[in-house]
Amino acid sequence: MTTAYETLLEKVHELTDLEKAMGVLSWDKETNMPPKGITARIDQMGTLQRLSHTLFTADETGERIENAAAELGDADYDSDEASLIRYLRRAYGDARKLTTDFVVRSNQVSGQAREAWMAARANNDFATFQPWLEQVVSLCQELADMYGYEDEPYDALLDKFETGTQTAEVRAIFDAVKAELVPLRQAIEERGTAVSDTILHQPYDIDGQKAFARYAAQALGYDFERGHLGTVVHPFATSFSRDDARITTRWYPDFLSPSLFGTLHESGHAMYEQGTHPSLYRTPLARGTSLGIHESQSRMMENIVGRSRGFWQAHFPKLQSIFPDQLGNTSAEQFYRAVNKTQPSYIRVEADELTYNFHIILRFELEQALLNGDLAVKDLPTAWNDKMQALLGVVPPSDTLGCLQDPHWTRPGFGYFPTYALGNLYAAQFYETAVSQNPTIASQMANGQTEALVTWLRQNIHQHGRKFTPRELVQRVTGSPLSHAAFMRYATAKFSDIYGL
Amino acid sequence: MTTAYETLLEKVHELTDLEKAMGVLSWDKETNMPPKGITARIDQMGTLQRLSHTLFTADETGERIENAAAELGDADYDSDEASLIRYLRRAYGDARKLTTDFVVRSNQVSGQAREAWMAARANNDFATFQPWLEQVVSLCQELADMYGYEDEPYDALLDKFETGTQTAEVRAIFDAVKAELVPLRQAIEERGTAVSDTILHQPYDIDGQKAFARYAAQALGYDFERGHLGTVVHPFATSFSRDDARITTRWYPDFLSPSLFGTLHESGHAMYEQGTHPSLYRTPLARGTSLGIHESQSRMMENIVGRSRGFWQAHFPKLQSIFPDQLGNTSAEQFYRAVNKTQPSYIRVEADELTYNFHIILRFELEQALLNGDLAVKDLPTAWNDKMQALLGVVPPSDTLGCLQDPHWTRPGFGYFPTYALGNLYAAQFYETAVSQNPTIASQMANGQTEALVTWLRQNIHQHGRKFTPRELVQRVTGSPLSHAAFMRYATAKFSDIYGL
Repeated sequence: MTTAYETLLEKVHELTDLEKAMGVLSWDKETNMPPKGITARIDQMGTLQRLSHTLFTADETGERIENAAAELGDADYDSDEASLIRYLRRAYGDARKLTTDFVVRSNQVSGQAREAWMAARANNDFATFQPWLEQVVSLCQELADMYGYEDEPYDALLDKFETGTQTAEVRAIFDAVKAELVPLRQAIEERGTAVSDTILHQPYDIDGQKAFARYAAQALGYDFERGHLGTVVHPFATSFSRDDARITTRWYPDFLSPSLFGTLHESGHAMYEQGTHPSLYRTPLARGTSLGIHESQSRMMENIVGRSRGFWQAHFPKLQSIFPDQLGNTSAEQFYRAVNKTQPSYIRVEADELTYNFHIILRFELEQALLNGDLAVKDLPTAWNDKMQALLGVVPPSDTLGCLQDPHWTRPGFGYFPTYALGNLYAAQFYETAVSQNPTIASQMANGQTEALVTWLRQNIHQHGRKFTPRELVQRVTGSPLSHAAFMRYATAKFSDIYGL
Repeated sequence: MTTAYETLLEKVHELTDLEKAMGVLSWDKETNMPPKGITARIDQMGTLQRLSHTLFTADETGERIENAAAELGDADYDSDEASLIRYLRRAYGDARKLTTDFVVRSNQVSGQAREAWMAARANNDFATFQPWLEQVVSLCQELADMYGYEDEPYDALLDKFETGTQTAEVRAIFDAVKAELVPLRQAIEERGTAVSDTILHQPYDIDGQKAFARYAAQALGYDFERGHLGTVVHPFATSFSRDDARITTRWYPDFLSPSLFGTLHESGHAMYEQGTHPSLYRTPLARGTSLGIHESQSRMMENIVGRSRGFWQAHFPKLQSIFPDQLGNTSAEQFYRAVNKTQPSYIRVEADELTYNFHIILRFELEQALLNGDLAVKDLPTAWNDKMQALLGVVPPSDTLGCLQDPHWTRPGFGYFPTYALGNLYAAQFYETAVSQNPTIASQMANGQTEALVTWLRQNIHQHGRKFTPRELVQRVTGSPLSHAAFMRYATAKFSDIYGL
């Protein structure tokens, strides 16, 4: 006899398979699809999306969820079953709030806004993008009303990326980061220590880069038997199951960093999904908790591991052996310093570990001001530049290098940006906890080894997938809510050492 | 106001998108999926398959088809609309006949039969495969009864691959081929002319092979802006739209033929789908007419073009420039002869253009005997060897090199094999017609150029997609039904020249 929970799982499996199929189509679009295949691919993805939405939002799905919930009664909060019910109730409620009319309008505006943005960025002409951004802001406001909120509209949007996290909390944490990070950045600038990264800008053979990227990903613990490294323009990680979690990267013939640190970053994302518990297979729980927690895993591998002294003392000889002409006369310590150079810059995606957070805080504050109507879209460029001056001490010479640099604001996705910086903060807090619980992690890291760290991450974070909210996870893993403190301790120690403060 | 035909098209688009999505998942499975991704991929493909079958076989789909048919009235037979209705009525009727119970049992048997076959082939142990083949034969019989037939059970199965073609016709044509091809093969053997293909068996760098495969595919007319060349174990072509028709091949480090002729073969398939008329987009008509007609296009490019003297006189210098050590002392004529060496062999997939047909005729005859109960499965090895002796004058030293060589009989797919040889015959008949209608084709071919030929193929075959049955298409293109004659004229002329008969 089939239980109500089994009946629910049947539907969940179907929906998960559909979502993963969309993932494959999307992955293929970025990696292998010939340019002219795009029209058909958009149609195909649209059909799967529509089918999936229709099946999920049907009354019958809600009934299956509630029947299963009733059958489970007061099941253990931590159980897969109770966690799935919690997740599905939230997701079902959200999906039912999204009207078809809104989705259609939103897609139309986003498509045209993206065209306008590309032209505006190319021509440094904010004015032509302005009316589209106004429409996007208004879609965000509409979306916030549709989802509903208690304290402020931004809560409704942030919740979609960082479930259960309030704007006020993030604001308090980011303010605390600013209070300490601005003086640290200024101290580094005033100290004036020279750190050169010119060795990273040399001709590097792509095949050699590929060989080292694979080597480094494996050194972190990424499993190629359950993974794949593809080439794309805009790197990402994606998974079709814990046993098929892929990474992508891009290759520059004369700049080593993007492929190298991009691969480490995406490996962190993919290792998270490779580490979800097998019992979560074919359910939406077999994914990262939230964008922020996901980013904590990628930043952990990219920065805390991949930009550590121990990692390069252990692995630099391998890199050197692949590129003897470029790196034969460089020491591991010089390389370590080169990949940790910090300096104010205009472009978020090129920013270093330390200054990256400023770029996010700026966007977080501007998104709220736009959403609340405190900032008119036409005044965005000025507001942007004022904040750049305050946070980073530089002002971009053009909007192309300023408020027009990111594609994010071509769609109603306010609330996404803060997750990038939250990832840095979560990562530091997790890492500090990990090392305090298992000192072997630190000693291994000093030798470029990650086995103990990855075991800890699997046990404490990866295996749970999406069973808990970010808030719940951070509390159960570290014993405290998220704060800025661990990140500031980590960053202050690391950069004081490098810059001789 | 939406017409009944538009309402039908909406459903057709949805179903086509789902089918193409399955195609992408399947393509990815063969090309990029990591080994351990297989479990999830089978689940995902199963879900799409089930959704697609459920949507297609719903009563409502039948109503949409009939409403549209009624609205169209006596639309022009050749129109897209009338052709789509004809196709859908057939496909809908067939799909409704397939019971879920049969599909489930068939998949179970096929899965286990495949395992048994792999072991049996590895151990040259037909007896362990025998009970599974008996079940497969029984499934074929059941399938024939389920679909129904007028003259003989094999008709019902053949019809699924070569719509509207009768077993009796194919038998008569294959008998005619045998009557002329057996003496031709014997005459070649008796003449004893030495043709060497040892130059093909040398170390050939894979990157060089890839470069030439791309060059050669483009020389045929394959459009890489709407295509992609991937690497697989078992090569195939597949399309997700006319603007995304992909080929795959495999690479041997010391044998040039598989990658080279495999690429030309798959290019022929893919060019067919690239050439379907844009008006057929997102419908099941945007594909090849049938397996046999599809194979005619791949064989045309692989053999009639790709193994022609003109092609190698034009393109051999390019190949030589990539492989100067291997081919520097070889002439285009020597290379042309090497790639046209004919000799009896045991393995179908390694057979040459001339003897390949014998391998198919043998299987066609044995399938009928098994289906009709004239041949017991236990007697298959003997029957196989007897036919090899009669047709090719050789007897395989083991069942591994005999009746256990192909995977096809692990599933109830009788009726598929003959389409391979039909492809050869269609190709020759089409080509003879093409040259008679446009003599430029022959003069271009003498210079290794295919533009006029491809234009003719587009116009007469490709653009129609699946609008007509194979019988209709051959009649309208060549003015006659399919016969063995053109192929025999082509083969006799070509091989008499090479072997000095």
